[in-house]
Amino acid sequence: MPVFLNAADPDFETRFSALLSAKREDSPDVDATVAQIIADVRARGDAALIDLTEKFDRLTLTPDRLAITPDEVDAAVATAPGDQVAALELAAQRIRAYHERQRPEDAEWIDDSGAMLGWRWTPVAAAGLYVPGGLASYPSSVLMNAIPAKVAGVSRLAMVVPAPDGVLNPLVLAAARLSGVDEIYRIGGAQAVAALAYGTATIAPVDKITGPGNAFVAAAKRRVFGKVGIDMIAGPSEILVIADAQNDPDWIALDLLSQAEHDESAQSILITTDAAFGRAVAVAVEKRLETLERRAIAGASWRDFGAIVTVPDLATAATLSDRIAPEHLELCVADPDALSAQITHAGAIFLGQWTPEAIGDYVGGPNHVLPTARSARFSSGLSVLDFMKRTTLARMTPAALRAVGPAAETLANSESLEAHGLSVTARLRKLNDSEAL
Amino acid sequence: MPVFLNAADPDFETRFSALLSAKREDSPDVDATVAQIIADVRARGDAALIDLTEKFDRLTLTPDRLAITPDEVDAAVATAPGDQVAALELAAQRIRAYHERQRPEDAEWIDDSGAMLGWRWTPVAAAGLYVPGGLASYPSSVLMNAIPAKVAGVSRLAMVVPAPDGVLNPLVLAAARLSGVDEIYRIGGAQAVAALAYGTATIAPVDKITGPGNAFVAAAKRRVFGKVGIDMIAGPSEILVIADAQNDPDWIALDLLSQAEHDESAQSILITTDAAFGRAVAVAVEKRLETLERRAIAGASWRDFGAIVTVPDLATAATLSDRIAPEHLELCVADPDALSAQITHAGAIFLGQWTPEAIGDYVGGPNHVLPTARSARFSSGLSVLDFMKRTTLARMTPAALRAVGPAAETLANSESLEAHGLSVTARLRKLNDSEAL
Repeated sequence: MPVFLNAADPDFETRFSALLSAKREDSPDVDATVAQIIADVRARGDAALIDLTEKFDRLTLTPDRLAITPDEVDAAVATAPGDQVAALELAAQRIRAYHERQRPEDAEWIDDSGAMLGWRWTPVAAAGLYVPGGLASYPSSVLMNAIPAKVAGVSRLAMVVPAPDGVLNPLVLAAARLSGVDEIYRIGGAQAVAALAYGTATIAPVDKITGPGNAFVAAAKRRVFGKVGIDMIAGPSEILVIADAQNDPDWIALDLLSQAEHDESAQSILITTDAAFGRAVAVAVEKRLETLERRAIAGASWRDFGAIVTVPDLATAATLSDRIAPEHLELCVADPDALSAQITHAGAIFLGQWTPEAIGDYVGGPNHVLPTARSARFSSGLSVLDFMKRTTLARMTPAALRAVGPAAETLANSESLEAHGLSVTARLRKLNDSEAL
Repeated sequence: MPVFLNAADPDFETRFSALLSAKREDSPDVDATVAQIIADVRARGDAALIDLTEKFDRLTLTPDRLAITPDEVDAAVATAPGDQVAALELAAQRIRAYHERQRPEDAEWIDDSGAMLGWRWTPVAAAGLYVPGGLASYPSSVLMNAIPAKVAGVSRLAMVVPAPDGVLNPLVLAAARLSGVDEIYRIGGAQAVAALAYGTATIAPVDKITGPGNAFVAAAKRRVFGKVGIDMIAGPSEILVIADAQNDPDWIALDLLSQAEHDESAQSILITTDAAFGRAVAVAVEKRLETLERRAIAGASWRDFGAIVTVPDLATAATLSDRIAPEHLELCVADPDALSAQITHAGAIFLGQWTPEAIGDYVGGPNHVLPTARSARFSSGLSVLDFMKRTTLARMTPAALRAVGPAAETLANSESLEAHGLSVTARLRKLNDSEAL
């Protein structure tokens, strides 16, 4: 059974705070192992990749078999069901259209001192995309990571995906092709992250690594951060649904279960203005759990971390939602726009009862890589900006330097940075000398 | 003596690669100490802050003396030299004007399926700013961190600054006031970072922490990352100057020294198309080093990490610059705009001989918190975006769900995520039933 809370209860604040601070993930400490793996790949390159792939994936490779060739991709894609490839194509097209609007604008202007100021955005030159193998090898995640990189203008996008026992998901390769991935390597784990960060004879190093992975992959990403950029380290998935009584309890139950089925550590919360509706949703969840394929996982998540919270009004729901700062937020209420306007912290908002969260996982257009574990308070989902960087620009004229240079000299001296000041003084002296002529 | 390289030399590639990979920083491993300090602050709150401040800063505090009151700020600001406060005001005004242009735009549109898609930017609710004490307590850094936060709309900006032996830099307090900092606490080190991240009875927790600090502060920021957002962990400063022979060697020498004087691990590199000019700059550096206040630091940096590289043409200079991916890049050439257009990876570009890098440290307008250690390949300087986050928005209509829902069902099933698919199926069934009526 999930937790039932009511904002009117005297112990509500205590119980709600406990819900917020519940520790949902207990990652194994694999850091020492990962450090060894990274050192091995740095020292022995391809040979280390081959040994580690033999060990962890039971797959024998040679240097020229590390890469998956275009012919192999062709052959795999040909085995993928046509309706699935067509669905991927629709998804790719919609994700691309959404992300193309995220391309940032450059700026240049002349300010009142006569100085030119501005900035310029440029793509990361090379990016690496980690794709898990096995059950969590999701083609949709390939689209969500690769398309923003390509829209940003990344010219070299290298993907790694482990092939345990040689098995690869054809749809993952189809998604890679649709997204414009440039290179694919059949390696995984910390060794693949190390290869992307430091390079080997076969795999050129990249500048940024994104994509989900297990505890080994996450630890490796943390370790190579600095040498390369990384995306966020995602925690277990979460959904918060705010619903009034004018909803089908079964729909809301399915929305809650669609996060719960990801992971036993996932969290699904319903906030409702109607306690009876909340109870009806709980009943609907139990009924769906009787037959759901992943009922063991979804049931554990719902039992351990699920919650149904009754509130007196939607304003209270909005306040609680901002304290949760949910990864996914569904607003199944009569006026979702009005409620949305009261929300400040959320990764993605799904407005109205015709927008189940699953639409956002696949074909909505927005990215499904979103901040978890309350980090929507300070971070955003994956976007084109994650594959770009900004260079600031400044060009002084003699007149501009005369106008602002003396203040720079004063501040440099106040900070005891003499050479900073002198670099301005020397130029101002030249200007004054020229004027005196 | 710095390293002299010439792109025409047979061993150039080897020596240039060595320059790129030179390890300039050897941070002490303070992680175990920092873990203890954070645990102590989490367990004992204000009492731990008071004990640790007594120990590290030789300053006896009480809970009600942790905060610096507005009256204390008034009194300190009154002692600051008027010309320095005026220079800070000019700097603040220019930094604010630049950063106000960085405010991102929200977007909402209806796509061809009838779905509303978009995103919305909102500020981080509360941010913490770390300011070092002692010699590295730079008022300019307060402006560079606090103004973007306030322009972003951060409503609560809490600053921490240690006061070793009770001493504070009045100009730091003046900069805090000018920038709109809301709270100031006289604490520092890992304990201050812990207090900002987890909160104490006196200090409410924040959502994001930025600002430079020593090895303890950097280790603490790494440890609290995830609980809160952090900015980049900055390494030693760097400058690359690309200059032709039409420059005053003394100006270029001062520009190189203005990074070298920061830190013995700082790095200053000159790339020039004229070997004789390069030698003249080397002579000018030695001459300035005879009298410079911080000659011990600047001399060590220049001797250990400085370099003068001769290239046959500016195209080669641009190529080498992108391999360095410098934090600061000065283009002292006849047509700096043309050269700038060939550069892809740099934190900040200073165009032309009237734009010494020191202008950017204080009064240019762009931020002086920039990516170091080649991270300009994948990251950007501090900006308003660092204090904001984006929520994606999606609203399906029944027609839009009919158009894209089946593809979501197909993909959910291909990923064995049944509840995802059913959450769409249940709604489509309702639509089909209504149609059938």
